[in-house]
Amino acid sequence: MAKNIKTRAEDYSQWYLDVIKAAQLADYAPVRGCMVIRPEGFALWEAIQRDLDRRFKETGHVNAYFPLLIPMNFLAKEAQHVEGFAMECAVVTHHRLEKDDKGGLKAAGELEEPFVIRPTSETVIGHMYAQWIQSYRDLPVLINQWCNVMRWELRTRLFLRTAEFLWQEGHTAHETAQEAQEETLRMLDVYAAFAEEFLALPVVKGRKTESEKFPGADATYAIEGLMQDGKALQAGTSHNLGQNFAKAFDIKFLGRDQKQQHVWTTSWGVSTRLIGALIMAHSDDDGLVLPPRVAPVVMAIVPIFKTPDELKKVMGAIREMLSSLVGNDEVQSAWDRSAGRQINQSASTQGWEAAAEKDSGGVVPFFFDRTTDQQIVLDLRSMRPGEKQYYWEQRGVPFRMEVGPRDVDAGSVVIKRRFDRAKESVEASKLTPGHLRTELADVQRLMFQKAAEHRQANTHRVDSYDALKATLAEKGGFVRCFFHPDRQAEAKIKEETKATVRCIPFDAQGKTGKCMYCGKDGAPEVIFAVAY
Amino acid sequence: MAKNIKTRAEDYSQWYLDVIKAAQLADYAPVRGCMVIRPEGFALWEAIQRDLDRRFKETGHVNAYFPLLIPMNFLAKEAQHVEGFAMECAVVTHHRLEKDDKGGLKAAGELEEPFVIRPTSETVIGHMYAQWIQSYRDLPVLINQWCNVMRWELRTRLFLRTAEFLWQEGHTAHETAQEAQEETLRMLDVYAAFAEEFLALPVVKGRKTESEKFPGADATYAIEGLMQDGKALQAGTSHNLGQNFAKAFDIKFLGRDQKQQHVWTTSWGVSTRLIGALIMAHSDDDGLVLPPRVAPVVMAIVPIFKTPDELKKVMGAIREMLSSLVGNDEVQSAWDRSAGRQINQSASTQGWEAAAEKDSGGVVPFFFDRTTDQQIVLDLRSMRPGEKQYYWEQRGVPFRMEVGPRDVDAGSVVIKRRFDRAKESVEASKLTPGHLRTELADVQRLMFQKAAEHRQANTHRVDSYDALKATLAEKGGFVRCFFHPDRQAEAKIKEETKATVRCIPFDAQGKTGKCMYCGKDGAPEVIFAVAY
Repeated sequence: MAKNIKTRAEDYSQWYLDVIKAAQLADYAPVRGCMVIRPEGFALWEAIQRDLDRRFKETGHVNAYFPLLIPMNFLAKEAQHVEGFAMECAVVTHHRLEKDDKGGLKAAGELEEPFVIRPTSETVIGHMYAQWIQSYRDLPVLINQWCNVMRWELRTRLFLRTAEFLWQEGHTAHETAQEAQEETLRMLDVYAAFAEEFLALPVVKGRKTESEKFPGADATYAIEGLMQDGKALQAGTSHNLGQNFAKAFDIKFLGRDQKQQHVWTTSWGVSTRLIGALIMAHSDDDGLVLPPRVAPVVMAIVPIFKTPDELKKVMGAIREMLSSLVGNDEVQSAWDRSAGRQINQSASTQGWEAAAEKDSGGVVPFFFDRTTDQQIVLDLRSMRPGEKQYYWEQRGVPFRMEVGPRDVDAGSVVIKRRFDRAKESVEASKLTPGHLRTELADVQRLMFQKAAEHRQANTHRVDSYDALKATLAEKGGFVRCFFHPDRQAEAKIKEETKATVRCIPFDAQGKTGKCMYCGKDGAPEVIFAVAY
Repeated sequence: MAKNIKTRAEDYSQWYLDVIKAAQLADYAPVRGCMVIRPEGFALWEAIQRDLDRRFKETGHVNAYFPLLIPMNFLAKEAQHVEGFAMECAVVTHHRLEKDDKGGLKAAGELEEPFVIRPTSETVIGHMYAQWIQSYRDLPVLINQWCNVMRWELRTRLFLRTAEFLWQEGHTAHETAQEAQEETLRMLDVYAAFAEEFLALPVVKGRKTESEKFPGADATYAIEGLMQDGKALQAGTSHNLGQNFAKAFDIKFLGRDQKQQHVWTTSWGVSTRLIGALIMAHSDDDGLVLPPRVAPVVMAIVPIFKTPDELKKVMGAIREMLSSLVGNDEVQSAWDRSAGRQINQSASTQGWEAAAEKDSGGVVPFFFDRTTDQQIVLDLRSMRPGEKQYYWEQRGVPFRMEVGPRDVDAGSVVIKRRFDRAKESVEASKLTPGHLRTELADVQRLMFQKAAEHRQANTHRVDSYDALKATLAEKGGFVRCFFHPDRQAEAKIKEETKATVRCIPFDAQGKTGKCMYCGKDGAPEVIFAVAY
């Protein structure tokens, strides 16, 4: 097969795009800087949404929906916010199209005041909260929104930075500063647990410096992951907005003390860039590698046969294994689902054997886990088995199983593990859901471990600016050092090294030392890295 | 308590808005014609999404995401489509804001070609399909998208017609005309089953006339429900687009016959207006009434007590009942979830009794069904029991249970059923999940039955135009008659009666008779109604 993916060593940036293309995760859209998330990619977002949404609900949050368009003047109400956000965004100025002279169309019906497509929703949500919140009894308000947002980015990159992207934005309002701070950190913990348990991505939790914080926040916290090329990726942020938006939008309540006061708000979000993080943290030169909990397909089954007799034998054995793995009812349902589609088109009701023979079986999905929609697929396309293996490999499916006549005779099958290419021979009778679940959990654990080891091997410690520069230039990775955060110093360091302070990590809280840049004592430990 | 909902008899339109307001389902946004879907309303949309998404996946569909913005020239490619859709829509003409002289903001960075916020996505999806589809082996493509869309509507109404709304749009591409037609009708069936089984809303399936069909479709099919005021509401549409969009966007494939040909496409959608249908089909003068399968909260428990001893006794009994209904683990989890929030604020760890006493318990949610996120809530707010009853009644919660000291002594509780106010006394020991599930299923069935009876009582048959006019004016409802669909005749009838042909119903397929309007034989049976 022609190699369609550059290696990481050859060209890391191209490798990233090739992995996405080979797995059919996304395409560029006919709108500059926007992407189309294809079904294979969107299934990853659905898995992420399902898991995160559960975590949000477990911590008492509810979902809602606020408008896409924000009146332009709203953006000007919070001074820092407008500087950070309002400048590059999509502006709606008209509400009608008319035919022009040349038979084309033109914008018409100019609006009195333009609207902006939300780059984030603090402003419009603040406006609504001001109406909903009257008394301390209305607090806390714990709302999340799943939606699309737009920022008119100049340099875009699939998943990592696109003009339109999908995300969730949590917006909460509280009675006290302490509660808002607790919420801010609670959600940071939720993100960290999600990243590590679900994405198998080890992250550092920490606070952002002033120059890296959210425009309009008192403090921003983030989780930072390390990619395989030694660059950092911010995977989620949680902001304590203090009373800044409450004051800008006049969100007041009557307190227990019978006095009117402003609420304390937070906001927190993760986006489809997590899919970029997933790809860059785990994939290899053969394509996508998915942690089992994220994988829409957990196992692909490829039948091997030459003669009609072999086909019959092999399909019989596969049917038995599937019955054990997903249950008889689901085998029947999958059949029914497919019957009206590919299989039935030419093979009528003669069964999968006929379907496989006549190239009309397609890929038949069986639900393995109904709570996550995760599937086992049976690949009945008329392609060579090697091509099918390659196809599922590039899509990062955790396990692949080939079943040929000799396997059926031996009563065992060989299962190939995507992430480390390990092969395991399993007695067909032992292929139970429990067995597969255990195997999946093992891979999940091992992938996290591998990523954690990579991070450890690529975390360095320096105590001078020269050492920082040298380490960033030669090794990359996370570079820890003592540093007094300072807007000007950070700008200069970024100019000279491309690196930024990723965070002031919680794991070094309380530790101080001599600033590697200004030489003064009492500097906190920070992590520098070049970031996506 | 002050009556905050007009009766249906007094003012049906105001009643509808009052029900929404009392249940806190939605608000108007600070953007003309747009709405904010509040958590109580959004939970209904989540329930709808969960159920429909499962049905889509069961029929072989996958989800994806296409861009929000559509290049203006795309809209002009399909002639009928542009007439129907392009004219009233939000137009993005700039990509930047700048400060103006007065310290405000103004649009800047004019785009070479404007973009339109999608009113529907046939065009941009057609553009992508043209790139993805090469051979018959790439077919069928069965994709759905959950997203927001905008149409600059002049007259808006919460849920029923808003400038921005949420929906799903399925877009499929097929090898043959027959397959496309099968898909179109399959999805109509999915919608009908969903409406009847999930929303408890009986619907008529049928085909739209030429004047009512989707701009760009060969044929449009719809499900039509009847509201309590005798008006029809179109609850879902499925379009056979023939090769119209395939030709406009050049979506071609190499067929089994080795010839290049255009694909056959379909599209189908339902939107947040289903929430409007839910409200108008089932609610009463006291507020929202929810079919159990849609209800985010299936039961609300209200403790009744006067003294601390009574409180202790009552809370002990409630705890036991909850353990039986949701399991001990969930009782503990709910406690943990609430501990960091309301309860702990002032009551520390002294328990729910203390929380209820001190007005810090709030509403504690317990997950009753993890596959649907449906909850049982325990209302520990410091309001009078009557107020709490009223609160949950207006929110349409299917069952309410008050537990007082006398109930504890008697070893039984009284459960109030929202939809028909029936009361049932149940031995506390018999309050099992199975019992509650049976009760919920009963209500679901009875609500469908009631709506079906209402429809039957409000379906009329006429054989002359005079009778049609009189029936529409005096009775409303669905009016069936033989009629030769005709653009001019339909426009005239609409002008004179406000009614339109809702559909040519499948249930009268093959039946023909003398047209009540033109008098010619061979007319199909149609349904006229005034519609939302």
